[in-house]
Amino acid sequence: MDDRIEFATHPDRYKHWQLSCDGDVARLVMKVDEQHPMRGGYDLKLNSYDLSVDIELADAVQRLRFEHPEVKSVLVTSGTDNCFCAGANIYMLGSSSHGFKVNFCKFTNETRLYLEQACEQSGQHYIAACNGVASGGGYELALACEEIYLQDDGSSAVSFPETPLLAVLPGTGGLTRLVDKRKVRRDLADAFSTLAEGIRGKRAVDWDLVDGVFPRSKFDDKVTERAKAIAANTPDRKGPGVELPPVDVTIEEVDGKPVRRYPHVTLTIDHGERTAHIEMRAPTDDPATTADALREQGARAWALAAFRELDDAILQLRFNEPEVGLIVISTKGDGAKVKAHDEALAKLMADDWFANEVHWNMARVLKRLDLTARSLFATIEPGSCFVGSLFELALAADRSYMLEGELEDGDAGEAAIGFSSLNFGPLPMSNGLTRLQTRFLARPEHVDALAKRQDETFTAEDAAELGLVTFTPDDIDWEDDVRIAIEERVSISPDALTGMEANLRFAGPETLETKIFARLSAWQNWIFQRPNAVGERGALTMYGRPERPEFDWRRT
Amino acid sequence: MDDRIEFATHPDRYKHWQLSCDGDVARLVMKVDEQHPMRGGYDLKLNSYDLSVDIELADAVQRLRFEHPEVKSVLVTSGTDNCFCAGANIYMLGSSSHGFKVNFCKFTNETRLYLEQACEQSGQHYIAACNGVASGGGYELALACEEIYLQDDGSSAVSFPETPLLAVLPGTGGLTRLVDKRKVRRDLADAFSTLAEGIRGKRAVDWDLVDGVFPRSKFDDKVTERAKAIAANTPDRKGPGVELPPVDVTIEEVDGKPVRRYPHVTLTIDHGERTAHIEMRAPTDDPATTADALREQGARAWALAAFRELDDAILQLRFNEPEVGLIVISTKGDGAKVKAHDEALAKLMADDWFANEVHWNMARVLKRLDLTARSLFATIEPGSCFVGSLFELALAADRSYMLEGELEDGDAGEAAIGFSSLNFGPLPMSNGLTRLQTRFLARPEHVDALAKRQDETFTAEDAAELGLVTFTPDDIDWEDDVRIAIEERVSISPDALTGMEANLRFAGPETLETKIFARLSAWQNWIFQRPNAVGERGALTMYGRPERPEFDWRRT
Repeated sequence: MDDRIEFATHPDRYKHWQLSCDGDVARLVMKVDEQHPMRGGYDLKLNSYDLSVDIELADAVQRLRFEHPEVKSVLVTSGTDNCFCAGANIYMLGSSSHGFKVNFCKFTNETRLYLEQACEQSGQHYIAACNGVASGGGYELALACEEIYLQDDGSSAVSFPETPLLAVLPGTGGLTRLVDKRKVRRDLADAFSTLAEGIRGKRAVDWDLVDGVFPRSKFDDKVTERAKAIAANTPDRKGPGVELPPVDVTIEEVDGKPVRRYPHVTLTIDHGERTAHIEMRAPTDDPATTADALREQGARAWALAAFRELDDAILQLRFNEPEVGLIVISTKGDGAKVKAHDEALAKLMADDWFANEVHWNMARVLKRLDLTARSLFATIEPGSCFVGSLFELALAADRSYMLEGELEDGDAGEAAIGFSSLNFGPLPMSNGLTRLQTRFLARPEHVDALAKRQDETFTAEDAAELGLVTFTPDDIDWEDDVRIAIEERVSISPDALTGMEANLRFAGPETLETKIFARLSAWQNWIFQRPNAVGERGALTMYGRPERPEFDWRRT
Repeated sequence: MDDRIEFATHPDRYKHWQLSCDGDVARLVMKVDEQHPMRGGYDLKLNSYDLSVDIELADAVQRLRFEHPEVKSVLVTSGTDNCFCAGANIYMLGSSSHGFKVNFCKFTNETRLYLEQACEQSGQHYIAACNGVASGGGYELALACEEIYLQDDGSSAVSFPETPLLAVLPGTGGLTRLVDKRKVRRDLADAFSTLAEGIRGKRAVDWDLVDGVFPRSKFDDKVTERAKAIAANTPDRKGPGVELPPVDVTIEEVDGKPVRRYPHVTLTIDHGERTAHIEMRAPTDDPATTADALREQGARAWALAAFRELDDAILQLRFNEPEVGLIVISTKGDGAKVKAHDEALAKLMADDWFANEVHWNMARVLKRLDLTARSLFATIEPGSCFVGSLFELALAADRSYMLEGELEDGDAGEAAIGFSSLNFGPLPMSNGLTRLQTRFLARPEHVDALAKRQDETFTAEDAAELGLVTFTPDDIDWEDDVRIAIEERVSISPDALTGMEANLRFAGPETLETKIFARLSAWQNWIFQRPNAVGERGALTMYGRPERPEFDWRRT
């Protein structure tokens, strides 16, 4: 397991970014160490990035929200001469498997969205200070910021060379943010996206590609001034910050199966069955009911710890377990405790920034689950606690199996599920709806009726009647039904399932977010399979070589 | 040119469908002649379809709207025993090129949408009478209908075997209509879409997959009764119908280039340059200003004839000219005549069903252009008539070049563009917005301001100022600029351009329609490239053979 990708990092260990805070303005400086790519085989020239660079960025964005509540604006800039960022490293892409490319793009897309949401949800406003060329993923990073400023020096440009030079798309949200976030006119977007050298100076402003240009001599002053002005207009969040230690995990092997054991989550891989089992456990303590008490618990607070652990488990599965086709999710513990923690958090989050961050982290992790291209089944048995935030796991699943009646020994009683107020708004999916709203798209009045039953719990019969679970076998059928369902699922083509789930999971409205993950990413994934990009003479493969790529000219 | 696909047909020549009208109820009976597929190599067993079957369906749907205004409900049913429709023929798919598969799916998707829109726009309500198994594309056809009835006979079922059996998606709108049109609960949709044998009887009703089941003995009576009831509740459209003769076209070769010459459209292919040129001409007559006069003109009316010709030209390009990467669109004639015809039509369409059908046909053809995966440039020169409905061609283009000033000889004066009321609502894109609204997504007030300037025409300088065209070279630069732009465009990877255009063309809201063409189709296109479906041991390739397909189990 030596070449496993791990996601824990810390500013003290960053190789590619420098994070510094000066009062309410932070600077996030990209200075990629080209000699330290994630794996061998390529240099990270010109501030190009690979997954290891993006893991640090994701860490910085997350830490700023928790550890630096005083920060109100973040200047994203470059410490490498004449180059803001050249985007994803092409040699890395050219030498990666299809599955890695797809998951790399998904992670970088999530990171850009998290950065964008920090503006909206935490009042941490990101400003791209492009003090050099921002090309491809470099300009996409800028597009995720709230404002973009470009140095006017005759050479600094923004550009999308992907399509004309590499035969792929600006797939880290680029095309979508161009026309849907910045609402650049589509014909200008078209011209821009096929112009490898990009656009500089005043024209970049005229085309709405950047918000302003400043000469080199004044650039630093001007962008700092702008960052300070934004910070001055942003409400305070009272410190101190809450430190995020690495997630606590031990790796072992049980009955030949690799197990990652976290305090509140256990991830077990069954390579033979091509499944993973995630068990998530209820808190055992009483919740903090004041902001101070919650602050005191910090990263140990169940709602933060448990969902950070789940996040790590999901990323492990995405990157390190490509053959796992199905994740079976179970829960264990006292549902009343989950509900108590949820309600305490819900009360605090209206006024307390930290409680609010804990809640938004939970929302992000659940979205990460929705967006994970593995089949998800929830199994709801006696002794489980699919209540409130943990019931969202069952709602995120492609289907759920709930045992009807008691088990033979009967000790644990009947399985029951229930709601908390977190099920009715605070944890939206990427489509902007709650998982209950998405589930009952045809019956919004049913969701309203369920919202009035937050004090109840529901056994299998009621849950089935209310449409909250998919199947409810009794204890005689349970084992066979679940086993057969798992066997059938893992026998189906992984690609077809990925496509099917991407279509069925996100009914209802589309948002910038869903457009990025469905429309843009789906086309990019297609292109990542096409010989014109990845074939022996394809543009990604031939990049940097003296010969030109060769294309099959047939359009579809 | 012997194996060119042609799209003209007529009920008298249908091989696979029978169309009959009885008062206000029509019957469209699918009885596929299995011995007459579009090309050799497969039989069309079990009412499975290929493009030739779908061309007849598209023709029937179109003809019903124009030739049978008295029809208010259409029963879609089968004349083949125990089988409603088995969907797209798998051997046909398995032996088709990627490009053909993609274009076949696009055409069938358009046909389903046209059928759906006939309900909404023409008051012709389609009812699926599934008197046998409706599997895959068969159930997708039913889903496009307003209501679905299934025979309850112990064997008739609805099913989506694509994912579990064929490793592809129900890509003709199936997954999208399941959760977004019928709003089937996503977990039930998941279970249904992986259950090859499908669902029958009462359970199909419980899961919202069909609107009702009737026993075999009563099925015909019940569905006919339902069709009559719907017809009785639908307002009359006063006949007589308007016949649609085949589009008039002569095929020739000029300077070694194939030319399709229609009365109002000329399509010229330049295989060397990998471009096509479409010239669309203004009417030369005055418009019909009464419903009777328009009826008298019938299919010869400019607005109907010219757009039917354009439709044929687009389909020719899609299916018969795969290597053409760029379509250059020009217009010729008197813009004032275009405007006069547009306004006359706009006036009549409020009260006259035929005028309304002419207008909806125009809207469909323009959508077909938007959805064509070829780059589109509009060139606007002196003597052109990009006004009103023809200005939509320039708005549909990825970019437009407008010549500023006069040409050397100066005879034609300056190029000018202008609006008609058709630019401000009646011709929506798939995203539900007008092309002007999509173009100026950031500035809705600008569109309102433009709407007040419908009596003006704009030369290049004004047009550029108003953001209506992309580039405005003068006559000194014109030829070089356009030539270089064309050369650059056709040098870029076709796949990357397809993905780029699919992302840039449809900014703004997503609809059922855009979800089908972007989310669902993009994933299907990806899957159509994956070895698990189309590789040597892939499921599509292995279908019908004794061995099982072999899958690469890595998820993405």
